[in-house]
Parts: sequence; C-alpha cells; structure tokens
Amino acid sequence: MLKVGIIGATGYTGAELVRLLSRHPQVELVALTSQSYAGEDFASVYPALNGYIDLQCADLSPQELLEQVDLAFIALPHGHAFEVAKEAARLGKRLIDLGADFRFRRAETYTEWYGLEHGAPELTARAVYGLPEVYRDEIRQAQLVANPGCYPTSAILALAPLLKEGLIDLDTIIIDAKSGVSGAGRKAVVNSLFVECNENIHAYGVAGHRHTPEIEQALSFLAGQEVRVSFTPHLVPMSRGILSTIYVRLNREITGQDLHSLYRAFYGREPFVRVLPPGRWPHTRWVYGSNYCDLGLAVDRRTGRAIIVSAIDNLTKGASGQAVQNMNIMCGFEETAGLDYPGLCP
Amino acid sequence: MLKVGIIGATGYTGAELVRLLSRHPQVELVALTSQSYAGEDFASVYPALNGYIDLQCADLSPQELLEQVDLAFIALPHGHAFEVAKEAARLGKRLIDLGADFRFRRAETYTEWYGLEHGAPELTARAVYGLPEVYRDEIRQAQLVANPGCYPTSAILALAPLLKEGLIDLDTIIIDAKSGVSGAGRKAVVNSLFVECNENIHAYGVAGHRHTPEIEQALSFLAGQEVRVSFTPHLVPMSRGILSTIYVRLNREITGQDLHSLYRAFYGREPFVRVLPPGRWPHTRWVYGSNYCDLGLAVDRRTGRAIIVSAIDNLTKGASGQAVQNMNIMCGFEETAGLDYPGLCP
Amino acid sequence: MLKVGIIGATGYTGAELVRLLSRHPQVELVALTSQSYAGEDFASVYPALNGYIDLQCADLSPQELLEQVDLAFIALPHGHAFEVAKEAARLGKRLIDLGADFRFRRAETYTEWYGLEHGAPELTARAVYGLPEVYRDEIRQAQLVANPGCYPTSAILALAPLLKEGLIDLDTIIIDAKSGVSGAGRKAVVNSLFVECNENIHAYGVAGHRHTPEIEQALSFLAGQEVRVSFTPHLVPMSRGILSTIYVRLNREITGQDLHSLYRAFYGREPFVRVLPPGRWPHTRWVYGSNYCDLGLAVDRRTGRAIIVSAIDNLTKGASGQAVQNMNIMCGFEETAGLDYPGLCP
Amino acid sequence: MLKVGIIGATGYTGAELVRLLSRHPQVELVALTSQSYAGEDFASVYPALNGYIDLQCADLSPQELLEQVDLAFIALPHGHAFEVAKEAARLGKRLIDLGADFRFRRAETYTEWYGLEHGAPELTARAVYGLPEVYRDEIRQAQLVANPGCYPTSAILALAPLLKEGLIDLDTIIIDAKSGVSGAGRKAVVNSLFVECNENIHAYGVAGHRHTPEIEQALSFLAGQEVRVSFTPHLVPMSRGILSTIYVRLNREITGQDLHSLYRAFYGREPFVRVLPPGRWPHTRWVYGSNYCDLGLAVDRRTGRAIIVSAIDNLTKGASGQAVQNMNIMCGFEETAGLDYPGLCP
Repeated sequence: MLKVGIIGATGYTGAELVRLLSRHPQVELVALTSQSYAGEDFASVYPALNGYIDLQCADLSPQELLEQVDLAFIALPHGHAFEVAKEAARLGKRLIDLGADFRFRRAETYTEWYGLEHGAPELTARAVYGLPEVYRDEIRQAQLVANPGCYPTSAILALAPLLKEGLIDLDTIIIDAKSGVSGAGRKAVVNSLFVECNENIHAYGVAGHRHTPEIEQALSFLAGQEVRVSFTPHLVPMSRGILSTIYVRLNREITGQDLHSLYRAFYGREPFVRVLPPGRWPHTRWVYGSNYCDLGLAVDRRTGRAIIVSAIDNLTKGASGQAVQNMNIMCGFEETAGLDYPGLCP
Repeated sequence: MLKVGIIGATGYTGAELVRLLSRHPQVELVALTSQSYAGEDFASVYPALNGYIDLQCADLSPQELLEQVDLAFIALPHGHAFEVAKEAARLGKRLIDLGADFRFRRAETYTEWYGLEHGAPELTARAVYGLPEVYRDEIRQAQLVANPGCYPTSAILALAPLLKEGLIDLDTIIIDAKSGVSGAGRKAVVNSLFVECNENIHAYGVAGHRHTPEIEQALSFLAGQEVRVSFTPHLVPMSRGILSTIYVRLNREITGQDLHSLYRAFYGREPFVRVLPPGRWPHTRWVYGSNYCDLGLAVDRRTGRAIIVSAIDNLTKGASGQAVQNMNIMCGFEETAGLDYPGLCP
Repeated sequence: MLKVGIIGATGYTGAELVRLLSRHPQVELVALTSQSYAGEDFASVYPALNGYIDLQCADLSPQELLEQVDLAFIALPHGHAFEVAKEAARLGKRLIDLGADFRFRRAETYTEWYGLEHGAPELTARAVYGLPEVYRDEIRQAQLVANPGCYPTSAILALAPLLKEGLIDLDTIIIDAKSGVSGAGRKAVVNSLFVECNENIHAYGVAGHRHTPEIEQALSFLAGQEVRVSFTPHLVPMSRGILSTIYVRLNREITGQDLHSLYRAFYGREPFVRVLPPGRWPHTRWVYGSNYCDLGLAVDRRTGRAIIVSAIDNLTKGASGQAVQNMNIMCGFEETAGLDYPGLCP
Repeated sequence: MLKVGIIGATGYTGAELVRLLSRHPQVELVALTSQSYAGEDFASVYPALNGYIDLQCADLSPQELLEQVDLAFIALPHGHAFEVAKEAARLGKRLIDLGADFRFRRAETYTEWYGLEHGAPELTARAVYGLPEVYRDEIRQAQLVANPGCYPTSAILALAPLLKEGLIDLDTIIIDAKSGVSGAGRKAVVNSLFVECNENIHAYGVAGHRHTPEIEQALSFLAGQEVRVSFTPHLVPMSRGILSTIYVRLNREITGQDLHSLYRAFYGREPFVRVLPPGRWPHTRWVYGSNYCDLGLAVDRRTGRAIIVSAIDNLTKGASGQAVQNMNIMCGFEETAGLDYPGLCP
C-alpha cells in the first residue's frame, strides 16, 4: 500500500481527495494536515466520511508529514507549495500540488499573474503539468506534478485535437466558462455565501483571470506557437461542475462529422474523456462527482466556426480526481483505480 | 383607465403581466384567458396575487376578448397570434404580442426558422419591434407591437452602441447567453423538471436557436449591413435572469474609458438601462423582478476585443416588463409607470 | 416627510429596509450606518438599488445618527441596541429595533437565553413587542418597538386564534420551522456558504434556540397562562422564506370548517394575513418579498390534532416589512404604505 | 453472477438501481424495461452511465423479462406489480417491488389508502417488508420483498429503538418530514417543474399522505400495539434527501446520554445506520447518494420530549439502495456489496 498524506485536507479539494483515496485499493491515507481543525477527527469535519476515514487532522510541518508518506498532495492556496516541494525533493518523496505554484514553465509568468516571487524556480523547471491526456509520459517519470487548474482542464481538453491538427485561426479562441461555487473554496467570504450566489449568475475576472496564462501555455505547446485567448469565467448557482463553451474560427472547411471523427480518434483510448454523439451537448450533472470530461461538438457553417462544449466536475477531473489519476500514473497503478465509477445522476 | 386583457394569462409571462398590471396606476385588467384553468380564479392559480386580482380565467375567443378591451397582450407560444392580430386590426384594438409571430420583417425568415407558414404577412410588415431603446418613435405610433425575445433583448442592448458607432468587425460577434429556467415556460416537460435542471448547466440549440435570426435582424439594422452572429444559449439552475456575455473584435484601438463614455452617452437618458462603472460586472440578482438591463464593459488589450456583459430578468425586461413599457409608450403614459421599483435583492 | 435612519444598513435586513423605504411615499431616508462599508455608496454595495438611493454609508455614533432623524431602525445583531435606545429616549426619537434586545418583558429572560447582561432594563419594560396583529394599540403609542423575530412571527400568527379561544392542550404545541438562509445574515461564516447549504437540509438549535422564549412569552400572553413549546428550526436551501408547521392537540372536537371560520373571523380585517381555503397549503414563494403571512389549516380527526402551516418571507414580514408596518402604525400612516404589493412569483 | 432485470428502468429509482447495480461485483444486469424509451440505449437516456451499461431499454412483458433473470426489481408506480408478482411466483423468480403494492399485511389497508382493489392478496400475505434493520431474518427467506417507502424508512429507523423499549406515549408521535424533489419521480407535471419548486417550501398531503398507514403498520409491529401518528411531508428545493424531525413524549425520565446509549446499542452492528454523537444533527448532504441513515437525538427536559432527526437519501436508502441491500440479503451476498461508499459531499 502506498502511504499518502494530504496537506490542507479540510478544504473542498482536500476533502474530495480523502473521499477518493479512502476507497482506493492501493492507498493508505496516513496523515491529514489542517490548521483550522487540528486535533479534530476528519470525520467530524466531514461526517459524510464517517466510517471511511479514521484520522485526526494535525498541524504538521512539511517535513513531519513527508517523513510519514511515500507521496503527498498539497491542497492549499497558491504560494504555500514552495517549501513543501523543496523538502520533498530533499527527501525524495513524490508530490502532487493542486495549486498554481508549479504550473508555469517560466517563473516570471507566475510572478506576473500571481504577484508573488516564485519560491522554487529550480523545481518549476522539472515539474510536470499533470494533464494525462497531453503529458502522460512525462507524468510517469515525474517526482513533482503540478495539477492543472479546473478551468484550464476543461478548456485544454476541449481544444487539444483542433490545435494538434492545426485546424483553427489561433487568434479567434474564445472560452466562456461557467463554474459551480465549490471552485471558490471553503473560505468564509461574503461572495461565496448562499444568499449571494443563489438565483444569480455573473462574470468575474473578465480579461484578467489567472487561469488565462495557464490555458495559453498549454494551448501554445499544442499549437507549436504562441496562442492568446479570451477567457471569461462565470459563477453559477450550483455546488459542482464546470461547463466551458468554446468558439474558434476554422481555417478550412470541415463537416461536423469530420470533427467528431477527429475527436473520437484523438480520445478513443482515453479512460476519462467521452465524446458525445453529434447533436448531444454535455450536462455537468452527467459528470457529477466523477472524473469524466464530456465533450460536445459542432461545426456552424453559417459562421465558419467550430463550437466545443466541455463538462467536468471541478472538484474531480478539475482537481482531486485528476490528482489521483496522476498519482496512479506516477505509481504504475491502473490509471482508473479509485476513479472507476459514474457520475451521481439524478 | 385603459381596459386591458391578457391572452394566455396563466403561463409565466402571463402571470408576470398580471403582477405588473395589477398595480399599474392607469390600467384596469378586465379579461384573462386560459384554456387549462378556464373557470378558475386567477388568484387560486397564482396565490401570490391573492388580494391583487379578482378575475376568473376564461376560455374566450379572440373576438370576445378584444371587444372588452382597449389593448391586449398575447402571452402564448408562437403560431397563435395570427388570428388575434387580424381580429384586432379589424376592431382597431392595440395589440402587444409576446411571441415570435410578428418579430420578423420578412415572413420568410419566420417560416425558415419556425417551420410555419406565416399567417398574416400583411400585418408583419406593419408590426413594430418593441425594443424602446431602438424603436421608441415607431412604438409610439404602433397598433401592433412584436415584443422582443428575452435573449435578443439582452444581446441587442449590449451591442447597440458599438454597432451604431461602427467600432467592431461585424463577423466576430459571439453571444454566450445563460438563462434561468422560467424562460422555458410553464409547460410540463421532463427537461424543465427540478431534478433535471438543479445542480446542472448545459448548452442547447447550439448553432441553431430561433433567437439567432431575431438578433441578426436587429443588429443588421443597427449596423446598416448584414450581420451574422454565433449565439449559444445555456440553461442555468435559477428561476429568473439572463446573462449574456458578448465578445467582439474592435476595428480600432479604444480604451475602456472610451467604451464606458460611449455607452453612458448612448444610454444616459434611458430609464431602464444602467451602465456599471469600470470594473463592475452585472449580476442577474440585481435586476431580479425588475425592468432593468445592467451592462458591464471592458476592453481587453491583449486580444483587441471588447467584452460586454448584460443582465436582465427574462420575465420582466425580457418579456412582460418590456411589454408594459411598450404599452406605456403606445398609450402616452409615463414610460416607467408600473415599473418603477428596484430588483428584489437579496 | 418622515426623516428616517438605519443603523446597520448593509446587512440583509438593513438592505431590505432600504428597499422598502426607498419607495415609501412618506419617508425620506437620510442616514445609513455601516462599519464595513463606511464611505461607500449604498448603491455600490447593493447595485439592485441603483437609482433608488443616493446615500453613502457612514460610521456614525448613535447620537450623530439620531440627531438627523425622526425615527431610526436598528438592524444589528443583539447586544447593540442598548446604548442607541438610551440615546433615543434622551432625544425623544422613535426607535424600532430589529434585534432581540427589547423583546422580553423580563430582562432576566434575555440574560438567560442570550448570555448577556441586559443593558437597559428600565427601557425594556416600556418597549412594545411589534406584532401588529396582537399589539396594534400599544404600537400606536410606542416610542420603542421591539420588532419580533422571524420564527416567532410565523409561529405566533399561526397559533393566536387557537390560543385566544382556548381550544388546545397547552402542553402539546410543536413548532417545526424551516427557514431560508438569509435568516443567518450576511456574516461570512462557513456554515452559510453556498456549498454548505445547497442540496442540504438540517435542523439546528434543537431544544435550545433563542426564539423559543420569545414564542413562549407571546403565546403565554395570548393563553393567559404559562405555555411551553417544542420549537425546531431547520435550514433550507433557499434565500428567503419561513414555513412553520405546527401541531397541537385540540381539547374539544371541532371541524375543519369551524377552524377556518375561526381564523377568517380573527384575521378578517388584517391587511397582511391571508387564510387559505380548506385543502390549500401555503408556499413560501407566494409571499416572496412581500409582507404577507399565509395560513393553511386542517383538523386531523384520526389524531385529534389541528395542523397549522404558516408562510412568511423572513426578511419582510419576518423582519423589515413588519418593521415598516410598525413605523406606519406609530406614525399614523396608512398601515400598508410602502408594503402594498404582492410576492414575486414565479 | 446473478442475472438481474429492472422493470421501469428510466424513472429516477430505476436509474439509481442501474447506477448501483452496474458496479455490483456479483450482479449482471441483463434487461431493462421502459415504455417511454423502448429501443433506446439506456446510456443515451442517462448519459452519466455512459461506459457503465450497454443495454437497450425494451418494452417486454413481465414473462419475457422474468424468463431472462434470476431476480427482478419493479420500479414503477403502485398498481403495476400485481401481475408481475404472480408471474414471478409461477416461475419461481425472486422479486423486489419498490412500489406500494405489497407493503401492507392487510390488502384492505392498501385499498383504503390507494383506492385500488388489491390484485394479489394471496401474495401480499407472504411478502416481506424490506427494512433490513427490522426484518433481516425474514428477508433472507423471502421470494417477494416489498421495499419500504422513502418517508417510512426515515421514520421507522428513527423510532424503532424507542418503540422496542416502550419508552414513549404512543399517541404523541409527530413526524415532520422534508423531501427533495426526486421523490416525486420523473413524471412531467407542473408541480415538479424547476420554477415551481425552486426558492420554495410547502407542505402537502397533510393529514392524509399514503405513507401514513405504512409507517403506522411498522410502528405498531414494533410497539406491539396499535400506533397512530401525525405525519406531514414537505417539498424542499433540492434533488435528493429526506430529513425527518420526530417528536415524542417520553413516558419516563431519561437523559440524553441514556438515549444515545440505547440507539448505539440498537444500531451498533448495523452497516448503514450511523448514530451521531450528542449535539450533532444530521445533514442530508452527509448521506447524499449513499445508503446511510444518520440519526441525531436529544432529550428536551423542558418539555419531556425526545427529538429524533433522521437523514437519508430518498433514492438510495429510501428506495434503490435499500432494494440492493435487500437483494444482497436474499442472495447471501455481503450485505454492503455495491453500497460500500460514502456520500458525495461537498
């Protein structure tokens, strides 16, 4: 059994990791850290897990935690992973960071968008961006995986086949994304209150959201040249789910059938990407609590555009499920281990 | 007092008309038709209105209804307004149709997108498209007003200033719209069930929704040339509200401040359009149950695009509120009569 | 015009007061206090009210505020009204407190349930409990009104006729109440986050909620003897609304028809209580954003019990609407002034 | 592998059966019937299950289905199970009916509350009420199991220990229950529309809901004498979950600690009942999508009552999960097979 620890276990992505790992056949959870709930049973903070986890939250230092485990997950806001990563490198422990600290090839990009000096630039160069559908081979060898952001996962998976094939005008990409509120985390802020979110939808971070450079880095890699996108996130009154609606201008005439064939070929052997048949569009409910990314596609002949819609659960494929998938790949487990169940619907 | 009747009073837009008109200072509601609830007190179908309306639903013919009123509203699905409009023309009664039957200048466009022969092409030529911010003068003289669709209202108001000024590449307009479920009406269908809509978001009508030609007709009029758009509606788990996020390529360099000045000038005297200050983005909750359209704007220098976000209540400014506004204009009432109250928030 | 100020204007009950008073025909809002938003336009905190209020939030002392107004509302958590009330008494200004500080005849009850020394016991003796349906005459003369809690309003109105008539076994009263989340206020706490409340219902404060003694005080007054109740509040995933389902054992045999007659007689002239016909049960949507209390009634012959269900909007009849109703009574205005509109439904 | 069929697979309880059985280690799903979707892939009706089920819906007769299977589930409205049960008896196949047709010992009770002649009274006498915590031994031998209703499951589990111990006045039981909307099924009716249910709570079936006699039958069995209850269901704006708040008068003085000890002893070895520690109250989110029943308890000394709150997922422990649990018991499988995972939370 792989001994695993979670740093920041009581936020929403931390709790989702516990949910998934508590039933993973090859994992033993041995340590959960939390500052706010140190000393409390994890199952009293998340009583849904009563009977599935018998650990207390502890306020451990990175070193204390890492010494107990074979692999650790960091489920903290950005800026907190640098020291942990250095310690993990020193101790030779594998690490999967669910935050943004190691997502950028260039530390300057991080500084520019996150407003922080990068605390471990030497490590960021060796970190692997944990999107298995694009970087599976690299993940297999990785010691440090930067788990993708939720919006970037939904956008990159939707666009990868088109970019690989060079089918679109690269300056026409528009990503209109809609997220459930769990994406904002469990922090007690007025903007995340029920009454503020319920019966409401609004855009935020327009023309400036931090997931923009992360999306652009991956798309540029896939396209083999610099790509810039318009990306607008929205907050939707639901707990889980991201739907990204993506518009691109095609640079040659293809049919909807061609487009479907392309995507089916590209994702045919992927365990967690499902390409819907023509005329069907994904619902976030269909991936609720699961690690799937569902894709719907169409060519709009009137405007010469392709429209791609992707649905994921932001806490699962958009965060903790994908992190477990990365762990499975890094450790040579079956890639679907602990993740092989459908969304909860209805 | 203006004697008013509503044809199709027990659907959601019908009930919203009753709510608004029951407190309108210059209106007397005299007849409500409903096939499903004929013979029942309207207030027993919508007990919220208990004490505000003392009429029974009746299954009247168009003629029977029109003879009792000075002005009628039709709040029925498309295809039902033709005969009523002919009868109204014959009797010289004013008519506001909340459906699509008279929204197109060319009857062929109607037939192409709605799949129905147009039943009164001679009247559609004389009908006025009831968007006061664009057609106020024509509405003043109109006998027959085609009340705009909910999505078109949100899109056209967001784009009108840019199109009038000729500031954008006309083949780059993308309208990503998100609607609450009341837009689907009160029909008992599986897709509108609570369990199907809750904790869910999905796109529908991709590259083929019937509001597309309606939007294009108005934008083409404003631009003075043919415009084609990509328009994608989504269903969001809330009862009321439409948020439209709109992306356009600017054809010259302007600042965000310029953009705000343009919109403030364009809408400065409009009673129901509020342009938010730079950096603020509309929430549908802020217009909940009210007749306002809130607009947020930005220029994205990285991509050369302008991004416009509009929020309306689909049942009010997107349907019945705008219909009352049109009635006010047609009848020479204060344009805000019966509509001068803020959204219900929180 | 009555000059009015609100202390604590940016919480949910404060904002509801602004919404209602901004359109009240006899009121001029002159001062809004808020510590968190001092210096900001109120309409930038609540953009729904853009165009309806042109005041900045200020961090005024009680004296500074009271000197500007004829009447003030306190919309703060309990414990903050004592000094304001003393100052108001000194200055001879009318005061309506939406918190709990002056709801109890006996200061000891306050101390026992709220864990605070009462800061103005001499004033509590003169304060009037602001439930117009029970204490209208006293309110007319009052200088200091203690506005009832939301749950107590829903429970007392449901039970008053039965208690007045002496029809029930007083030790059998069970009040099972369900509230929307706005009842928890706008405080940034984890328990009020969207993700914690959505798709969830739970009981809280079981056998110990602070509204229990408030309910018992009013019911004891109505019954003419000591009454004890079981009261259990629940949190429901909606923004507004309280539904209270109340069970009592009848001490004599009466029919459902008798029960309806009794309630219709009792509330026949009340402007804000609507007794539904037999077989109909109130929905909180029917009173959404309005000042109504809807009541449904039945006698269950199998068990000898009466079941009463009441619905209010917790922010309106359960707080700010009732406060405005009290102001109207105190000032000799039409009792329904500023409150004469139906709930927003759908 | 046990060959299993589901009659009525496309309703919500049917789909929940498919979700659970598609991953059950000892079950092979071989036939799914549906009239509305005959000929369609089940996974195209419920795309969440894409990749987990490869069966078409078929419009089979009871005999056709039963001949293919070892055990069948009926997930249809009441009145449809009689003929199936006769056929199953003839063929010697095991049957679990999720409807009400075989829940009553006395066919007359069925007729009285459901208004239908009972179509197979000879079978109802041999049917076992499928509540494992009460009837596990009988279920083990059963050929025909009547799966309990959702409300009855939540109520009976909450009360069983108190009744067995004879601790309460039997004429004081009040059950106030709150259900998510999926309990109403997938039928297209106005009352189940999103807009009708959202931002709303109401009672229904007051003093006459059909689950009343089912609850009373089980409680009477446990008490050893006739029990009558007041039972009021409510509709809450959430998809899944039932919370029942139950009030009873204690007939002797016991402490909260005694009560907890009693429940922990009674349910100590039950795999799916979790008794919460004193001071904690169940949230329906904690059992979301799982087969657990969480119980919270208190003694209210002021009123001499015990208050018990139970939470289940109405589709899982309240229907399909419990049906799978019954199948496990009938077939000698591990009782938790296919059900051993926690609720989805957050």
